This record gives sequence, structure tokens and C-alpha cells, in this order.
Amino acid sequence: MGSPLTAIGPESPARPAGSPGLRTDLVEAYRATRSLTEALAAPLTAEDQSIQSMPDVSPTKWHRAHVTWFFETFLLECFAADHSPFDPRYRELFNSYYEGVGPQFPRAQRGLLSRPGVDEISSYRAAVDASMEELLASELGGDGSAVADLTVLGLHHEQQHQELLLMDIKHVLSINPLQPVYRPERTHPRAATPLGWLDVDGGLSEFGWAGSGFSFDNESPRHCAYLYPYRLADRLVTAGEWRAFIDDGGYRRADLWLSDGWHAVRSQGWAAPLYWVPEGDGWSVHTLAGTRPLDPAEPVCHVSYYEADAYARWAGKRLPTELEWERALSLGFSSRPFDLDALQPRAAAVQDEAPQVRQAFGECWQWTASAYLPYPGFEPAAGAVGEYNGKFMSGQMVLRGSSSYTPPSHARPTYRNFFPPHARWMVSGVRLADGGTP
Amino acid sequence: MGSPLTAIGPESPARPAGSPGLRTDLVEAYRATRSLTEALAAPLTAEDQSIQSMPDVSPTKWHRAHVTWFFETFLLECFAADHSPFDPRYRELFNSYYEGVGPQFPRAQRGLLSRPGVDEISSYRAAVDASMEELLASELGGDGSAVADLTVLGLHHEQQHQELLLMDIKHVLSINPLQPVYRPERTHPRAATPLGWLDVDGGLSEFGWAGSGFSFDNESPRHCAYLYPYRLADRLVTAGEWRAFIDDGGYRRADLWLSDGWHAVRSQGWAAPLYWVPEGDGWSVHTLAGTRPLDPAEPVCHVSYYEADAYARWAGKRLPTELEWERALSLGFSSRPFDLDALQPRAAAVQDEAPQVRQAFGECWQWTASAYLPYPGFEPAAGAVGEYNGKFMSGQMVLRGSSSYTPPSHARPTYRNFFPPHARWMVSGVRLADGGTP
Amino acid sequence: MGSPLTAIGPESPARPAGSPGLRTDLVEAYRATRSLTEALAAPLTAEDQSIQSMPDVSPTKWHRAHVTWFFETFLLECFAADHSPFDPRYRELFNSYYEGVGPQFPRAQRGLLSRPGVDEISSYRAAVDASMEELLASELGGDGSAVADLTVLGLHHEQQHQELLLMDIKHVLSINPLQPVYRPERTHPRAATPLGWLDVDGGLSEFGWAGSGFSFDNESPRHCAYLYPYRLADRLVTAGEWRAFIDDGGYRRADLWLSDGWHAVRSQGWAAPLYWVPEGDGWSVHTLAGTRPLDPAEPVCHVSYYEADAYARWAGKRLPTELEWERALSLGFSSRPFDLDALQPRAAAVQDEAPQVRQAFGECWQWTASAYLPYPGFEPAAGAVGEYNGKFMSGQMVLRGSSSYTPPSHARPTYRNFFPPHARWMVSGVRLADGGTP
Amino acid sequence: MGSPLTAIGPESPARPAGSPGLRTDLVEAYRATRSLTEALAAPLTAEDQSIQSMPDVSPTKWHRAHVTWFFETFLLECFAADHSPFDPRYRELFNSYYEGVGPQFPRAQRGLLSRPGVDEISSYRAAVDASMEELLASELGGDGSAVADLTVLGLHHEQQHQELLLMDIKHVLSINPLQPVYRPERTHPRAATPLGWLDVDGGLSEFGWAGSGFSFDNESPRHCAYLYPYRLADRLVTAGEWRAFIDDGGYRRADLWLSDGWHAVRSQGWAAPLYWVPEGDGWSVHTLAGTRPLDPAEPVCHVSYYEADAYARWAGKRLPTELEWERALSLGFSSRPFDLDALQPRAAAVQDEAPQVRQAFGECWQWTASAYLPYPGFEPAAGAVGEYNGKFMSGQMVLRGSSSYTPPSHARPTYRNFFPPHARWMVSGVRLADGGTP
Repeated sequence: MGSPLTAIGPESPARPAGSPGLRTDLVEAYRATRSLTEALAAPLTAEDQSIQSMPDVSPTKWHRAHVTWFFETFLLECFAADHSPFDPRYRELFNSYYEGVGPQFPRAQRGLLSRPGVDEISSYRAAVDASMEELLASELGGDGSAVADLTVLGLHHEQQHQELLLMDIKHVLSINPLQPVYRPERTHPRAATPLGWLDVDGGLSEFGWAGSGFSFDNESPRHCAYLYPYRLADRLVTAGEWRAFIDDGGYRRADLWLSDGWHAVRSQGWAAPLYWVPEGDGWSVHTLAGTRPLDPAEPVCHVSYYEADAYARWAGKRLPTELEWERALSLGFSSRPFDLDALQPRAAAVQDEAPQVRQAFGECWQWTASAYLPYPGFEPAAGAVGEYNGKFMSGQMVLRGSSSYTPPSHARPTYRNFFPPHARWMVSGVRLADGGTP
Repeated sequence: MGSPLTAIGPESPARPAGSPGLRTDLVEAYRATRSLTEALAAPLTAEDQSIQSMPDVSPTKWHRAHVTWFFETFLLECFAADHSPFDPRYRELFNSYYEGVGPQFPRAQRGLLSRPGVDEISSYRAAVDASMEELLASELGGDGSAVADLTVLGLHHEQQHQELLLMDIKHVLSINPLQPVYRPERTHPRAATPLGWLDVDGGLSEFGWAGSGFSFDNESPRHCAYLYPYRLADRLVTAGEWRAFIDDGGYRRADLWLSDGWHAVRSQGWAAPLYWVPEGDGWSVHTLAGTRPLDPAEPVCHVSYYEADAYARWAGKRLPTELEWERALSLGFSSRPFDLDALQPRAAAVQDEAPQVRQAFGECWQWTASAYLPYPGFEPAAGAVGEYNGKFMSGQMVLRGSSSYTPPSHARPTYRNFFPPHARWMVSGVRLADGGTP
Repeated sequence: MGSPLTAIGPESPARPAGSPGLRTDLVEAYRATRSLTEALAAPLTAEDQSIQSMPDVSPTKWHRAHVTWFFETFLLECFAADHSPFDPRYRELFNSYYEGVGPQFPRAQRGLLSRPGVDEISSYRAAVDASMEELLASELGGDGSAVADLTVLGLHHEQQHQELLLMDIKHVLSINPLQPVYRPERTHPRAATPLGWLDVDGGLSEFGWAGSGFSFDNESPRHCAYLYPYRLADRLVTAGEWRAFIDDGGYRRADLWLSDGWHAVRSQGWAAPLYWVPEGDGWSVHTLAGTRPLDPAEPVCHVSYYEADAYARWAGKRLPTELEWERALSLGFSSRPFDLDALQPRAAAVQDEAPQVRQAFGECWQWTASAYLPYPGFEPAAGAVGEYNGKFMSGQMVLRGSSSYTPPSHARPTYRNFFPPHARWMVSGVRLADGGTP
Repeated sequence: MGSPLTAIGPESPARPAGSPGLRTDLVEAYRATRSLTEALAAPLTAEDQSIQSMPDVSPTKWHRAHVTWFFETFLLECFAADHSPFDPRYRELFNSYYEGVGPQFPRAQRGLLSRPGVDEISSYRAAVDASMEELLASELGGDGSAVADLTVLGLHHEQQHQELLLMDIKHVLSINPLQPVYRPERTHPRAATPLGWLDVDGGLSEFGWAGSGFSFDNESPRHCAYLYPYRLADRLVTAGEWRAFIDDGGYRRADLWLSDGWHAVRSQGWAAPLYWVPEGDGWSVHTLAGTRPLDPAEPVCHVSYYEADAYARWAGKRLPTELEWERALSLGFSSRPFDLDALQPRAAAVQDEAPQVRQAFGECWQWTASAYLPYPGFEPAAGAVGEYNGKFMSGQMVLRGSSSYTPPSHARPTYRNFFPPHARWMVSGVRLADGGTP
């Protein structure tokens, strides 16, 4: 039987996560996921873990505590006999946005709290882990139970925060003039590959989650939609291509931009992707491994939706809709496995003979032209966990795929990620589309 | 042959605007449209016409000048022999947002300009009108020519600003403690009618503009989409029903709201629709005819998308998508004619025997669940007028129908209006939907 | 007997205002002052009178109404038999800052009110004038009565607003790209005169108001203070001298500035006095008569305290304290008469043989090094008019003298004007001092 | 011979700091001062030391580094042979506001830097200490040399930051819902003493520093000024007296407040001193020892100038000028010694027989009615250290005395502390005055 948190990798291109048997080995999955969080935090000092460098960013220690709070609040409080809270004040302190649970400590002030410190949070994690293992070992923890379902949800939740932790600490370290390094990176030779186009048939097809494993509520229900025939790029836009956009005045030509995007360009002074640093005639790029020269073959990342849209217009193309993206994966796709020592997007591998969507997973999230809205017949989960996805369905755009920061097994063809169109601190890149005209 | 700006009214429920012969009688249409603008401004003093009560609002005199600038810039400058500008500084001063034309005087500062005054703007209008009539009478002005096409666009543009002028002056007068009246209103007895539900078939259908008359670029191309069977309310939500929402704590229950909406409720202190004023145990409402008691039978209006969405959730229903709204009109629909003396939404007339979409036009714009995005294969018009619609396709929601402020002939089943989800100063109301689940 | 509002002019260099007989001819003074306000507003359209170009600025029509409100509130409401308010809503609408009177319409929103319009405000003025004349003609209006005292206060108040009206409309017109002219100006040949230094003895002297006429409460009580011997410049700093400061990097050298001033330079982008406009290699200046070339001989004006202080440091000098300024006037001083057709500072006349403080009045207010604080034993007037001066005694610096915008008879050697150190929209200039060291 | 940093205490009421022999034992003073900083930081975790809870606050680790930077920049860089910087990037990173030294890392972002961490800063301190001891032991370090002068300045600078460190960490801990304790406090029985009034003669006297020891440049030159006879309270206003002010509506009566103060009350929602927390019918107070009940006999502290001024007006009194405060100390005064275990203001001891200014030092800084302006003939020190005081001479009010957080030997009768009138996070209290009228 498979793991509860099954990886998407080259060896399983068409196999969705959450295959049968998801809830066996739950304890093992619990331990693995919880350990990865600690491994990700391990290179960071107590000071590193305490900083909130902008309102979107949360301190590392907050992430470590909040994902623990999720298990305490939705599992231990509801199902563990005689559970007494580790610290009753944590209920508010580490509540992110669950109105159904109660008030929340203000998000923009998470970086103002020196206590609890990293050591107290380690104790908190240990205490909740002990109780969780006890609960999972009890009768309640069986396959298919509410406890198992919520635990799996909690693990996927923690995986999301593992990616956020990396995004956030990258930003924290990036603004420091001392240019600290999170961890050194193994380097690889890279090579650009030519951009190919995949032709995809139109017609009525089904979209959204279908299967027996885990998925988020926003991937359902599975439903029909009609598409016109279109073409999809077989790889991501590269940093070298983006440089051509810059050199052609891409950030200075209003005609290429949505109105809100042009406003962002001017008010924020955007002239390149986030983390690009001018260096002589070229560019360097800030990474978790420090600042290094830009590789023209690597996928461009840390661009906003506005930039992705402007680039596509400049290129005479457009962004795909999320359904176009999803449908194209039936042609086959390739992923890159998660690798803690190489947390950077890489150049596309040499193309296989079979046409397929290369760099679908494990490189950069890919902006789509779709607003983040409910599927027809969408129903959020019951209770406070119903706030997980549904209430964010305004003002955001969908991204598909996954990134080099996305932990193993947290990616699938129906996964809907979402961010506001101006956001740039996640590992977001661009895949072009064309056609689709009636 | 029909008028270039054909009215939608009860007598022509299923007949779209822009029927054949659109461009004959162009001069007549030009005069009628231009005159209506002046008639709308007539009750206002020079001071009234100069105020910008919030950044979204433009002064009346700015509207009067800007629509004139449109004709001067896109018609006279391009096609009129030996045209010399009325005042070369107006090119920037009255440019709203056309980057292709050049820089724009900052929008938020339109209310800081005392000059040109209303008299100079009247002279500007007269001068441009004279030149336009000359141009239209010339050979260039013939049916089907670029001049005719752009003139029709300019007239539809002016109609949009006629509605904006009314929305804006309503806001300007509303914040004045002296409670000025724009014009007295004829009052009507009203009666609530029960809410009925129209069943609409699903399946593949076509959407978007099809016809030979005028439409905006964002209504095209006509294209197929698939819908599941659904139900649509046969009338708008009433003020009385909204009061029940308020009384049930609608503005105090986080679980009913999108996250952004709840933030707006708390940061803006929303507790009722815009222009509702508590009065004893009940509510009064600010209108262009002054403040009067709320009529429970009238459609609720001046609500944001967030409020419309929260109301629908409270009612156990949802908002229709724009395609669901459009498709339902094939069942038949009713409109209310434009009436300068009754610029307020009214109660639905007693229901006809035939099921139809009542209050489709002439009462309140109706929020849909659809983000304002391009149709498949959308192409903006060429040149600077291509900025008209396309560059606003982010961060906005679609409204369908038309309102009591929408001028005659400026409404059709495929019309896509759009505003940000927090906006409330337009005449926006709510029609519920249900079903549509796979 | 003298006028209640006695002019300071060249013919009366050493004669303070408020000489005996101040309150005779009160009706005549009332009429003259009220008429001057209307004369100042006469060149302005209804639109001009409605604009608030920044929060510090009030619309002309607001000034016209507010000074009228002062008479209605503090005179007619208290002393006129059977007075019924012109419009009871004006009590709040035109209350500037008198908490003792009640709430105030928010200052920053004065420009959002189209009603009452200029015509209604003219009616308001006429009605209050009629009632005031009646009151002054009654027994209550006699010399030395509370009615007479408050009327004189109201007239001095209106004079202050006459200057504010000019300052404010200058700003309103200055931001308009059409560059409107308030009124043409008579031009004069000008000539720079060399800067001379007046030696002033130190020791114990008396300061503050002493006399029988009108003065503001903040000029009292008369009190002793000790000064060290010092020198005072016999004329104001000129625009030409200021240009040398600019050319020497004055606005780019942090070492010349107070910390708050340097912050203002950088955050506001100051590079020259307000209203200076670069023109080729030189400078033009915006005036009430339109934009004209800068005259190097005219006094520099529209500089902030921070700029005045930085200039003095650059020049190796300092600003005088307000007591040093006041004491030096015992050496004799010269003024320029108020002239509606020449509302601009002018070059100093050729120096008299007798040493004296030239350009003391009628050119530019002169920043002093003194914070605006109460004199020893200061007591504000009783009642709501006690809010007139006292409550502003923090965060402001004292200016002495008067400007070309200051109306006749509204200047005296003990007059204490005050503005925040960053303010620049008043006619503020610089006189240097030196010495004064123990 | 005395210490370079002589304490003011009850045993030496009239003896100014900086007595002869200031520069002997400089090494000893250096060690003692540097050690005290580390002792103050010792109870704090790495996370505590990294937080900036508001823009005014600096992280503890920043204070520890900045005072070290002062010695490195102004001593080692200028005088130590072959000095190589510990880290050249610190020159900008830990520059507070010295434009003469170069650019500064933005003040409001000090809390966004996780590196250098507390351990690296400890290394920085150790390295600079070693070099400083070497320098002081060299020939250059002799009595009366530039090195000795600047070292003494650096030590007084570090003492100021010792107080800031305590003020800042108090604020950091106060906003944490977990209510962390900095260190437990020894408690003392307290007793209110009746308020007495000291009569002080007027006339011409001398003010400002006179002596051979250390003083800041802003205390000079010594100069004459004239005072009218006045009375000064012999103790500070107590928390119990402040409660009566609150209970009498002190924070709700506009007539008691300066205009800027009333604006602060309303916009900040002030209803009590900072750190007062309503508790049942009474008040608790946040301290470095945690939250404890308010003691009515303790001096009120953490009030702004606006509050101090409003209280005085409510009490029918006024604040003393800084010269009135200074002159009264000739009557004798009492101090409280610095005590790390009791960092709170205490009730006045039972009054001595001799009239004197009790609680002059060691309890609360005392707001005066004086703006912070240069004394006649003031000259800032030469070079970048001249920015120390002079450039802050606008927008601030003078406080006299010292507080329970002020380190030993950092207090004297001529000391001029200064803060903006709205600031409340320092240990600021109120002493009343009366009389002084001509």
C-alpha cells in the first residue's frame, strides 16, 4: 500500500496522490512530515526564526507552532480524552484565520512576539506529538475515521507551511545586508532546451478531483467544462527569455500591462522579478544559498501575475486557464523530485520523445488566467476547517503545478494554489498558451 | 431603420440593441446623447459640478469635459481636416486612463481644479459639437466607416458617463449635511411580489454578442460553454429581505463572509447598504430626491459584491454566474424604461403568466459570481481605444443587467459591467441562483 | 480719534496699533473690514471659491462663511435679542475648532461641500451684517462693552482670514496646470540693497503688549526678560541670496539641517522655496499674478522654518529670537503699506540714514528661533474665545512682522504669528541675527 | 579623586557630576559601564533581544552593538593604529543618525535583521573592548586628551542607551499576551506624603553647566536669565492623584488640552497613562517585573507632555519651565540611588525638615514647559559628534531630573533630556509649578 502522502515524481507521472490505502501508515506519515518541518528549521538561529520581514511573511517559529496548534485544536481538543491545553493562550496566539475557533492574534504583529521562544515551541511540538501518537494508536485513529481524516488534513496543512516557511525565510534573509545563507546549494550544469508546443484537443471534458485519496475541498466536485482546441508550451519561460523582455522595455511599456499591473509597476518600482539584483551588465539572483549569477536556462520565478500576464502579451501569447493546464497533463508530464540540497528551479531536462508537459511539478508554480473561484456545486468542509479554502475565493488567481519548495507528495494535477495577482514572494513562474479561440 | 442607440424596453424584451441600421441617424443620436448629458447636469450648480467626494468619484464638470475630449481625441484629431485643439492642455487634463494618448492628470485630484469652470466646459462642448456635426456630415461620416464606428463608440462611452455622473453626484450630495436634493421624485405605490424560481436547462450553449449592431469588445467572441441545470430567482432581492439579513446579524457573523469581505465589514464599519440611514427603529435611504423612508418592496441596491455574496450564503443560495444570468434571458425578461423623474429602483410589477426574468433591466445592476476575465479568444480593439475594456480584466467582478440610472438604449443581454468587489456607489443589487451542481 | 483698526505704515513707524479711541467708529471699521473680504473674493469664480487643494487650505467660500459665523456665534447668539440662526446647521458646519461651541465639520473635508454655494453664503453675510449693525447701534454696542470688545476681536479674526484667503487661493491656483491669474500685478523696478547690521544692546527689558488698544491674549502679559547684546540684519534675505544657497548644495547637505528638517527635505523632495519653478538656467516664481521670473532683489518667501534655519547656518548666522526681534524695533523700523494691486514682497527701499529695521512689516513674516509658548503668567481669554490662541501653544514656531498679504492695521511690534516648522504656504521669509553670546 | 562617572545621590545633593579628576580611572569606568550593559541584557533571550515593537523602540541587540559602534567609529577608527574594522558593513548597520559618518540602515527596520545575532554581537563587543583597553593604556589615552574626552562621551552615550534598553524592552514585553517578566522586583511598603510647595525667589540668575567635569554640549553656555518669583511642588504627582484626574473626566474634556494633545487623545484612544491596565474597579500597571496593582503613592509615570500639561491645567497649576526647575535645586534636593532590583518609581520619602526638591532624581523624568532649544550662544561640538544633540532642537520638550532607569552617575541638575510631546514610553512624570507672574 502507498504512503498517505504520496510523492509525484518522474516515476509516476500520471498517478495522482492519495491512492488507496492513504490512511495506513498514518503514524509513519505523521512522523515524517513533522520531522521535515524541524529539518527545514534546523539551519536557522533563534533570531532568524523570530523575524517577520513584511506582513505576508510569518516567523519560522510561528509556522512551527501554528501547524502544531492545528493538531491540538482540531484533533486533541475534539477527540483526545482529558486533553488539557499546553498553554490556553496559544489558542488565540497561533490561530491564523479560523473565525470559528475564536479571535486571532493580529497577523501583521507575529514578528513582535519574543515569547514563546524557539525552545518553548520545541516543547510544544514534542508535547502535541506525544498526544497525537497516543490518539492515532487508539481506536479512534482507525482508517476512515474522522481522526484519520483530520490528521491527514493536518499533515497536508503542515506541508503547505513547509513551503511557506521556505518562502518566508528566503524573504527574511534577502533583506539583510549581511546576505546570510540558509544552506549551500549543490550546483548543476544546466542547458536551455527549445520551447515546444503541445497541441491539445478541445471539447467537453471532466475536471477536478476524482479518486479515493486526499484532496482539498476546492478541487471538487469533478465537473464538465468545454474547451476550444489550444496549444500549451512544453516548458516554462526561462530567465534568459525574461531578460529579453526586460531589455525590450517590458517594464516601461504601459500597453503590455493590465491597469492594476501598471499601477504596481510604477508604485512599487518593479523593473525585474523579485530577488533579481543588477550586477554589472547582467543580473544576479538572491537564493536560499546566497546570491549567485542568474542562469539563463533556469525557469524565471518570483514574478507576479501582472508580470506573467504582461510577459505573455509581449510574447504574443497568453496564460493558460487552469482547466487548459489541467487537461494538458493527460498528454503526460514530468516532475522534479524534492531535494533539500537544491531548492532552486532548474533548466528543463532534455526533451523525451513523447510529447508531454515538462516541468509540470517541482520547479515553479505556474500562473493561470483563472480567478480563484468555486467549481460548480462546490461545498466547503463542515465546521471551522471549512474556512480552509472557501473564504479566500475572491481577489486571487490560480497557480498550478508545484515548486522546488513544495514538499514530497504535496502535488497533483488537480491541485489549486492561489495568490493575489501582485504577490511575488512565492516560487511562481510562467508557462505560455496559445489558441483556444472559437 | 432603428436608432443607433436602441432602447431595451418592455416593448422589445428579446430584441438586442444594435439592430441593423445602427449608423443611420447618427447625427440625431449624437444630438440626443449629448443633450441628455446636459439635461442631467442642468439641476446642478457650478459648485456641485466641481466636487470630488472620494477618489472613485469625478466632478460633474469633469464628466462633461471628458466625454467631449473622447470625440476630440479619437475623432476630430484623427479625421477632421485642419482641426486645431480647443485647448492643447485639455489633452492631458481630460484624459482618463488612455496611456496610448499620453499622460493623464491624476485621477484623485480631479476635484482640485477650479478651472476650466462650467462655463468654459460648456464652450468646449459647443465647439466640439459643431466640429463633430461637420465631420459627420462629411463624406467620412458614412455608414460603416471608421468615423461612424468611433462616433457610436463615443456615444456609448458618453452613456456610461451619464450613469457615472448620476452615481457620482449622488455620492457628492449624500455627504453634505444640508442634504441637498438633485431633483424631486415622483412617488409610486409599490407592492412586494413573491419570489419565484425559473428552472433553466443545462448543456452546451453559446454566449456573448451575436448581431450586427454595436457592442463592446468584451462581449465577444461568441463562444460555447457548458452549464449544469440551475434555477434563477425571477426578481431581485428586496430591501425588506435585506432588513431580515441585518436583523439576523448578517453584518456580525464572520461565517457568512468571504475573508476579504469580512475585513471590509470590520475596517469600513459596514452595517447596512450604502445610503441606508438608521431612523428610529427602521431605516431611511438617501436618494437623488433626498432622504426618504425605505420601501421594503424596492430592490436593495448599493451593496458590494461581498455583501451580495454574504447575503446569498445566509439565504442558503448563491449568486449566478454571468453565463447563467445571460442564458436565463432566453426565457423572456422584463425591463423598466429610463425615466428622469424616477431615478430609483422600483418594486417588481405583478408577475406575468409567462415565466420570465423580471427586473432584468432598468432597476439595479446584478452582481454575478464571475470574475471579469476575457472570453476565449478575446481581442481588444486596435489602438488606444483598445484600452477601453481589456486592461481592466483583473480584480473586478461582473455585473449584468442595467439600472435605473442607465440611459435608454445602453442595455443588452450580453452587456458586461464590472466593478471591484468592495465598490458600493453604483446602483448594484442582488439576484439569487440555486442548483447547477454536477 | 484713530480707527479701531489702525494701520502700521511708514508714517507711523514707532506707533503701535490700538491707540486710544480704538472702539469708536466701530461700525465704520466693521463695514470696511467686511467689505475688504468681499473685495478679495471678487475676482474668484464659484468654482475657485469651492476648492481645498490640501488639508491646510480652506475654500474661499468657507472663509467667507466662517468669519461670519464668528459674529453670529459670539455676538448675535449671545447679545442680540430674539436672534434666530440663519441656518442652525451652520453652527457645526462653519465652526473651525471651538470645542466650547460644539462639534466641528472635519477640517480636511471642507472642500467636499458644494452647498451652501457662494450665493447662499453672500446671503448669510448680508443677514449677519444687518443684525450686527443693529446690535452695534444698540445700547450694548458702546465703547468698552463686551459687544464692542468681541466685535473688535471678530474684525481682527476676519483680518487673519483675509490673509489666509489669499494664501489659500494662491495654493489652489498654483496646482492648476492652466495657471490661472488671481489679479494682474503692477510691476516695479527693484534694486537690491546691501545687507547692514544693527547693533542692539542687551540687558533687562520689557516685552509684550502695553497699551490701551486691541491686542491678542498671547501678546500678554508684558514682562521682563534678559538679552545679551546682539546684531540684527537690517533687511530680509533676498531671493538672489537664496539662489546662492541652492547653488552651494544647500538642499543636499545634511550638516546644515535640523534632523526633522532633513527628513522633510528628503520625504517632500524640497529643492527650493515653495512656488519656485525651474526655468532654463534660472527660476520663475508662481504668484497671484501668474508665473513670472524671479527677482533677485525681492525677499525670499514661502520657506519653512527648517529652511530658514538651514539657510542661517549656511550663512554662519542664526535666526533671531522673538524677543530679539521685538526689542530691535525700538531702533526704528519701516513698513510697506497694504496694496491690493501689488500683493508681492518687494526689495528694500534705499536705506535711510538712521539705522532701523527695514522691511519689518508688509513684506514677509519673519521666522524666529522661538517656539510658540505662553509668556510668563499668560491667561487665555475666558469662554470659548479662549481657544483662540492658547491651545495651539505646542509644535509651532513664532513669526514676527507681517506680510504683503496682511491687511491694513493688522500688524504691530508685539504681534505673535505662529506656524508649524514645516509649513510653507504662508508668506514667510528670513531675517538673520548674530551674536547674543554670554 | 572622583570617578569619571560620578553618581548623584542623597549624600551629595549639591555636588555636580564631573568633578576634578574625571579622566583618571577611565579604564575602570569603561569596564564598569560596559559591564552594566551586559548585565542589563543578561535576563533576555536571543528572541527578546531581536524585537522592535514600534518604530521608536530598538532591539536590545541593536543597542549593544550601536554603543560599541560608537567606540569603534569615533575612537578606534580615528586613533587606534592599524585598526581594521570588525565587519565593515557594521559602519552603516549600526550608525544611528550620524550623517557625517555616512548612510544609516533605516531605523524602522532594525527589528527585521536576524543577523548579526546576539552571539556575534557579543564577539563584537569583546573585540572592541580589547582594542579600547589597548588604546586607553597607550600614550594617547592620557588625561585631557581627545581620546579621553571621546571615551567619556562614549560612556555617557552608553549610559543613555542603558536607559533606552530598559524603556524599549519594557515596551517589547508589554505587548506580549504571555506577559513575560524581565526580572522580579523587591517590593517596598510605600506611603504618600502631602504635597508641599517651595517658594523660589525671582531675579537674574545663571543657568547651565559650570564646572570642570563632563557635560553635554546642550547644557552650555552658562548664561543669565530672569525669572519671576514662583512656587514649585516638593514632590511628583502621584498615581492616586492621576486617578482623580481620570475619574473627573480628564481624558474626555477638550477644554483641558492643547489642540495637538486633544487630537492625540482621540486618535490614539488615550484614557490613562501608558501601561495602565483597567482591572475591576481599579488599575493595574505593567512593569518590568510583570503586571501588579497600581500603588496610589507612587509617582505617575509614562505620561506624555500633552497629558502632563492637561493634568496641570486641571489642577489649576502649570508645568515649570526648565529654568525654574533648575534654579529650585539650589534649595537642596533628594535623589534615589539606582537599584537594579527595583526599577520602579517609588513614593517620596518622609519629608526632611529642610525644604528641598524631593524626588529630583532617580524616580521619573519631569516634563517642563520649555521647548528644547539652544541656549544663547550654543555651539555644537565639532565633527560628526556635533550631531549628538544640536540637530534635534525642534519639535521636542525638555525633561529634567532622571528616572529609576537612569544609570548611576548619569544625572545632574543641568541635564537636559528631551522627547516629542506625544512620547510616553520613557519614565516620564509630572512636577507642578505655580506663580511666576509679572
